[in-house]
Amino acid sequence: MDAECGAGSCLGWAARDPSGFLSPYRFSRRVVGGDDVSLRITHCGVCYADVAWTRNALHNSMYPLVPGHEIVGVVAEIGSNVKGFKVGDHVGVGTYVDSCRDCEYCNDFLEVHCSKGSIGTFNSIDIDGTVTKGGYSSYIVVHERYCFKIPDGYPLAMAAPLLCAGITVYTPMMRHKMNQPGKSLGVIGLGGLGHMAVKFGKAFGLKVTVFSTSESKREEALKRLGADGFVNSSDQQQMESLTKTLDFIIDTASGDHPFDPYLSLLKICGTMVLVGFPSEVKLHPGSINLGSRSLSGSLTGGTKDTQDMIEFCAANKIYPEIEIINIQYINEALERLIKKDVRYRFVIDIKNSLK
Amino acid sequence: MDAECGAGSCLGWAARDPSGFLSPYRFSRRVVGGDDVSLRITHCGVCYADVAWTRNALHNSMYPLVPGHEIVGVVAEIGSNVKGFKVGDHVGVGTYVDSCRDCEYCNDFLEVHCSKGSIGTFNSIDIDGTVTKGGYSSYIVVHERYCFKIPDGYPLAMAAPLLCAGITVYTPMMRHKMNQPGKSLGVIGLGGLGHMAVKFGKAFGLKVTVFSTSESKREEALKRLGADGFVNSSDQQQMESLTKTLDFIIDTASGDHPFDPYLSLLKICGTMVLVGFPSEVKLHPGSINLGSRSLSGSLTGGTKDTQDMIEFCAANKIYPEIEIINIQYINEALERLIKKDVRYRFVIDIKNSLK
Repeated sequence: MDAECGAGSCLGWAARDPSGFLSPYRFSRRVVGGDDVSLRITHCGVCYADVAWTRNALHNSMYPLVPGHEIVGVVAEIGSNVKGFKVGDHVGVGTYVDSCRDCEYCNDFLEVHCSKGSIGTFNSIDIDGTVTKGGYSSYIVVHERYCFKIPDGYPLAMAAPLLCAGITVYTPMMRHKMNQPGKSLGVIGLGGLGHMAVKFGKAFGLKVTVFSTSESKREEALKRLGADGFVNSSDQQQMESLTKTLDFIIDTASGDHPFDPYLSLLKICGTMVLVGFPSEVKLHPGSINLGSRSLSGSLTGGTKDTQDMIEFCAANKIYPEIEIINIQYINEALERLIKKDVRYRFVIDIKNSLK
Repeated sequence: MDAECGAGSCLGWAARDPSGFLSPYRFSRRVVGGDDVSLRITHCGVCYADVAWTRNALHNSMYPLVPGHEIVGVVAEIGSNVKGFKVGDHVGVGTYVDSCRDCEYCNDFLEVHCSKGSIGTFNSIDIDGTVTKGGYSSYIVVHERYCFKIPDGYPLAMAAPLLCAGITVYTPMMRHKMNQPGKSLGVIGLGGLGHMAVKFGKAFGLKVTVFSTSESKREEALKRLGADGFVNSSDQQQMESLTKTLDFIIDTASGDHPFDPYLSLLKICGTMVLVGFPSEVKLHPGSINLGSRSLSGSLTGGTKDTQDMIEFCAANKIYPEIEIINIQYINEALERLIKKDVRYRFVIDIKNSLK
């Protein structure tokens, strides 16, 4: 069986070169080990990372490349040591599938920051030396620690975006104690991550203001997502009217933008968290010094936080806004994602379209 | 009595123009109000702010300008409502002399961040419309809230640098919970602020590493100040050997320098605090995102923290390293300060030299 030539039991869609064009691709996955869970994938969310790596934006893509790290499905098989799952369970897999489980960070459930390096769900070198392949595929095998339970009744399609978009904003919100009712939160950018930050913010009892350069998102932010305020960030007067009013800001914008105008909106000792990757962060020291403010970074979350977040969503009926697509539509969907033409996350119906 | 023409009961030294050259200058201070304390100044520390404002670096200097905001002395007179002080007490005054005492920040003892603006100890517009004048002078009158007790036995000359250099590093160290024995602290720059950060770090039980571009400071850092390590920050190999090893960094360097190499030395979720004012802060988002790190600013401290800090210094025998000078030497001292030729703070012996 030669996966690279198209044999194997797993059917996926892969990019073959930096054009990023995806097409069907058959490969093998490892057999289920003692601690492994094998899941039949039903849905996979479409993250901007899928664009970046299929097109070799970081110059480290290994082709054929099967993207996808917002994976949900149903347990099909478990290893002999698996305690946490049984066949038929609804489960999810996020942005990483392994780590050393022995370092200070793994021991602290910050596996994504594993000292030896966590293993990404796709385009990473796995422990057996193969290149990991993501969720645009029929099934995946993963150590049970990196598999999450999705409570009964939570729609599987909607669970998919929680595994990357959801946890990426939930983690810094919890780390920086944004779950304090009555405090105020600014959310920059209203895409896959931003719209989840709005939903978490409202669930935490925060007063949420959305910042976007796109006036077209005003009504959606206020009516569909329930934000308390909307500011067109191109409007200097609107921006300045909020000087020193926000306890927290989550910056989900991935494009380049100035930081000083947003930092000035934070109250004294306020915190702005960056989860996007602009090309550079540039600010005047006074923007943080004069208000004793913080600019913090964050990178998705650990396994404990991920499970907590999924359960928080189920308990509080927090559901990502999604557009379900067939895998055959993926190349067009990625183009639309680049143009930010999605409300707010594409989710691939793997079960019904990948055949 | 016309202060601007040189009359008045207070003798000081003032700069008259952006040359910054200081010379004797007589002016008036307000009479002691019900809530005021008047102190006979014995010593005043020399802060880099004194250079900046006497030379109009921020283009807002109002001449004649009497600098100095590390003031210590002895209470000479108190107003009828004053509860906290009596004549003869050893006291200090720091970087601000008034605030509204009514806003959320004042109520939270963050007076320096007063919503209506705190009033700086010099070169600020006071409540009576006059321009405040600092501690290079024979006495000062201040509302008791902005006056701090210096415990008996703490040398007055050494207390002076606590009022700006000390509190400026102590405040972020406490805010970011750096007082956890066994954690590791990096201190960038070994001047007035940096050397205090080393002393506080050691008192908190931290493992302290000093970063400096000046190899000449190695022995001083290790032997005189008791730091645990010294890194010549121009040496890339030495820098990289500390990757992901520090819980905290305090950056006291005021000159321009790169941020990414320092941020990469922080552990996951580590915090770097900026207290200096480089011309710009520029970093790669990965430097904070990939390690979930924070870059925080800070600006001196509130009245409660200031009093706590002074008492902590007295209890732990923390004394700034100073060079005592006469006021007649001040112009030369400011030149030396610009050249960083001071170990580590000039303190003017006002009592014995200002006559």
